[in-house]
Amino acid sequence: MSAIDQIREELLRASYLKSAEAVLQWDQETYMPPGAGAARADQIAFLSGLIHERMTSERLKEALYELIDLQTGELRTITLNERETRLAKEAWKDYRKEAALPAKFVAELSHHASTSQQAWTQARKESNFVTFQPHLEKMVELQKEKAGYLSLGGSTYDTLMDLFEPGMTTEQAASLFKALRQRLVPLIREIQEVKHRVNNSVLSKNYDLDKQWSFGEGILRAIGFDFNHGRQDRSAHPFTTGFHPTDVRTTTRLRENDLKSALLATLHEGGHALYNMGLPAEEFGNPLGEYISLGIHESQSRLWENLVGLSTPFWQYAYPKLRATFPEQLKDTDKDQFYAAMNKVRPSMIRVEADEATYNLHVMLRFEIEQLLINDDLPVAELPALWNDKMEEYIGIRPTNDSEGVLQDVHWSFGAFGYFPTYTLGNLYSVQFYNQARKDIPGLEDQYAHGKFAPLLDWLREKIHSKGRSVTASELIMDVTGEELSAEPFLNYLEEKYRGIYSLG
Amino acid sequence: MSAIDQIREELLRASYLKSAEAVLQWDQETYMPPGAGAARADQIAFLSGLIHERMTSERLKEALYELIDLQTGELRTITLNERETRLAKEAWKDYRKEAALPAKFVAELSHHASTSQQAWTQARKESNFVTFQPHLEKMVELQKEKAGYLSLGGSTYDTLMDLFEPGMTTEQAASLFKALRQRLVPLIREIQEVKHRVNNSVLSKNYDLDKQWSFGEGILRAIGFDFNHGRQDRSAHPFTTGFHPTDVRTTTRLRENDLKSALLATLHEGGHALYNMGLPAEEFGNPLGEYISLGIHESQSRLWENLVGLSTPFWQYAYPKLRATFPEQLKDTDKDQFYAAMNKVRPSMIRVEADEATYNLHVMLRFEIEQLLINDDLPVAELPALWNDKMEEYIGIRPTNDSEGVLQDVHWSFGAFGYFPTYTLGNLYSVQFYNQARKDIPGLEDQYAHGKFAPLLDWLREKIHSKGRSVTASELIMDVTGEELSAEPFLNYLEEKYRGIYSLG
Repeated sequence: MSAIDQIREELLRASYLKSAEAVLQWDQETYMPPGAGAARADQIAFLSGLIHERMTSERLKEALYELIDLQTGELRTITLNERETRLAKEAWKDYRKEAALPAKFVAELSHHASTSQQAWTQARKESNFVTFQPHLEKMVELQKEKAGYLSLGGSTYDTLMDLFEPGMTTEQAASLFKALRQRLVPLIREIQEVKHRVNNSVLSKNYDLDKQWSFGEGILRAIGFDFNHGRQDRSAHPFTTGFHPTDVRTTTRLRENDLKSALLATLHEGGHALYNMGLPAEEFGNPLGEYISLGIHESQSRLWENLVGLSTPFWQYAYPKLRATFPEQLKDTDKDQFYAAMNKVRPSMIRVEADEATYNLHVMLRFEIEQLLINDDLPVAELPALWNDKMEEYIGIRPTNDSEGVLQDVHWSFGAFGYFPTYTLGNLYSVQFYNQARKDIPGLEDQYAHGKFAPLLDWLREKIHSKGRSVTASELIMDVTGEELSAEPFLNYLEEKYRGIYSLG
Repeated sequence: MSAIDQIREELLRASYLKSAEAVLQWDQETYMPPGAGAARADQIAFLSGLIHERMTSERLKEALYELIDLQTGELRTITLNERETRLAKEAWKDYRKEAALPAKFVAELSHHASTSQQAWTQARKESNFVTFQPHLEKMVELQKEKAGYLSLGGSTYDTLMDLFEPGMTTEQAASLFKALRQRLVPLIREIQEVKHRVNNSVLSKNYDLDKQWSFGEGILRAIGFDFNHGRQDRSAHPFTTGFHPTDVRTTTRLRENDLKSALLATLHEGGHALYNMGLPAEEFGNPLGEYISLGIHESQSRLWENLVGLSTPFWQYAYPKLRATFPEQLKDTDKDQFYAAMNKVRPSMIRVEADEATYNLHVMLRFEIEQLLINDDLPVAELPALWNDKMEEYIGIRPTNDSEGVLQDVHWSFGAFGYFPTYTLGNLYSVQFYNQARKDIPGLEDQYAHGKFAPLLDWLREKIHSKGRSVTASELIMDVTGEELSAEPFLNYLEEKYRGIYSLG
């Protein structure tokens, strides 16, 4: 067996275990009885260990070593074609990330992540950062140690961010955020002066949960979610997972007095799911069959959630159906009013409830703070105060307690430092992709205004989903749009949209 | 680490994988999207392989060898206490069953089981035994080969049955069936002469599915099913599985025109689930934490389904609630009429729809035929004709096609020869256990006639569930009842019951 086939085989085996682990995690969030948590944790911990063993096995290492310098990642052979080269290099990157960490450290980190997340849950419930502080302090230290093992020369934060957005640098991300901030802060201020122009009270009327559910499923079906190869369930926090391109699961949440939340969560997770369903099944089990980065994944969810789901043509299609579902609640609201209500800008404490205009400032705040923590420029004890100051500076409101402030997100508790920027990168990618789709597909928006979403999905499938990880994020955006990642398209989109909705000058 | 601890550790690890595999199988039958079957099959096949590797690992073998002669199962040490001895011996039995089969044979068998089951599905749909025949012929050959690897001196059929009911012999099972046949056949004939005395048409009125579901959940809750450590879902064929005593899943099926089917399936699977929930969690992952045999497992399901669920005191408790749920449908039926309707004896083609009186004759037919097949006394081609002859002889009706005849059960298609008798053994055990419970618990039936099921469940927990596999089936029945397994208690129970319901002389 050739080295490249041996790599494929070893990784495929690891993928079966990863799929099994993902099924167990999906079940845990959807159907598992509440008292089964301890047994499930044991099962998942054991599978995680096996996956780590497979991802660092001697057989994999030997096959990689035939092709690649294990220290530098440089090719050691000229026998591979272009795709094989890519496969080998990506497999090496994954191998290195697993193999660089000492087993003892992995166990310590995994154990602390579990403890720390539990402490966060409790602290958030009590809105008391102090009880979480020592756990976060230790987590920051462990993350620095982790970056030490993994670094290939970049900064600590570069190394951590690379785990979620391969190839992205702190410098590039900082420059994108700077550009966003310069135009977003004044835009939001301008909107706030005329905020009365949009009334969104219709969204908090009482909406029957079963009807919301059916409407959401109808939307998923319309945009091309394949229920033969996926399903939607309910969970406390919406998420998407996939065990194979033929088995993709999303969840959503429903609230009686919040029509917007479920709709957008359904579209958001639906976008993630379409990406997972569109990954090349023939490459399942090796890097070429996987998603490129969290930023690219988020671009797919945000494209369907925001670019499509919060657009005028989408509601031209969907509003008559929604109104037929909820005739009483929507009888005094016309399509344009509904569209404006869904798009109302309202500075809020909570990131996941933020509108398109303020969302990236929430992310920027986290991006700045986590760099300070990782670089030892901010004692963890001072985190809540700085958080609140920055909220006031960027968003214009000040949290009154830790729950609606620094404790709102789970990420840091389990060690996801460098993850937050991918949310904003996703927003930026999504606009550039969407603009290109509009150029490439004649009458795109007119088509989906009449319920035809297939042209857009086909385009995404061809240009993005089917690529798997055969290209990097920066190659992808260049291949698809001919341009590098930039904040300008996003800012132009947002300004034009809100100038319309709020009749700004 | 001591050898016994090493055995525990190795088996615990295998158990995590078995739990993961069981979650994947549960998901496959409940929520998995229809198009995900091929990917799931790959995942499960890989996990099965890993489980086999773990169950036959060098580390396990070495630890066992320290304690036990791997050929004979004789103890090689005097250092173990009684429970440790049992653990080691049971672990050796399990190890031997895995290790005795060559890997190549396991792969061939597993592959043929999958092909053959698909052929059965198709043949059953088309009611055409001939297309299934070659697959069954090959399966019979593979089963004989399997028994050859596994035999410790007993007959081929002994060896196969031992996989499902350890310790049971063909001779003992045959003698039990003979006793059953002698009294069941005339009893059923006698009942058929006065069959008009019971009318069960009330059961096929229209019953709302959601209400059936809620009523069933209420019954499960009442008998002690712990929804903190289990759940019930819907599936095409009701089943029970467990990933740990704290995570037990049952399914049931609902039909609008069949009130009895869902109710009894819920109680049946509920009985299995109570056993799984009551297994000793502190022994999870080793044989002492497992169930004894399929017959004992079935005794728990049949005890709740038949001894309790088809009894007068049960309906004294449950009928007022059922009537409140379906006031319109049940308004002309009183408790005694309903009890009789649920217990109506009606010879039917299909085993799983059979009443308590005819059920074991369905099993006996299979027990006789599968011995003929395994012993080369019946060409597979002649199976349908013999099946139909025996149906006429034992049950008094003759199938008119293969679907309602020889193709009705899936078991043989995937190689489960020697499995069927455990259904009848479960019925026999259940009556002996129940009779003993009545002796041990003052006013047992009066208690559950008033909704108090805890005394019975506590008794089962103490006497049976908590034992795990620390005793054999024959030791258990002797320990609990002071008697050996016998057909007489079952026959006495049945005759007394039906003499009442049908006012027989």
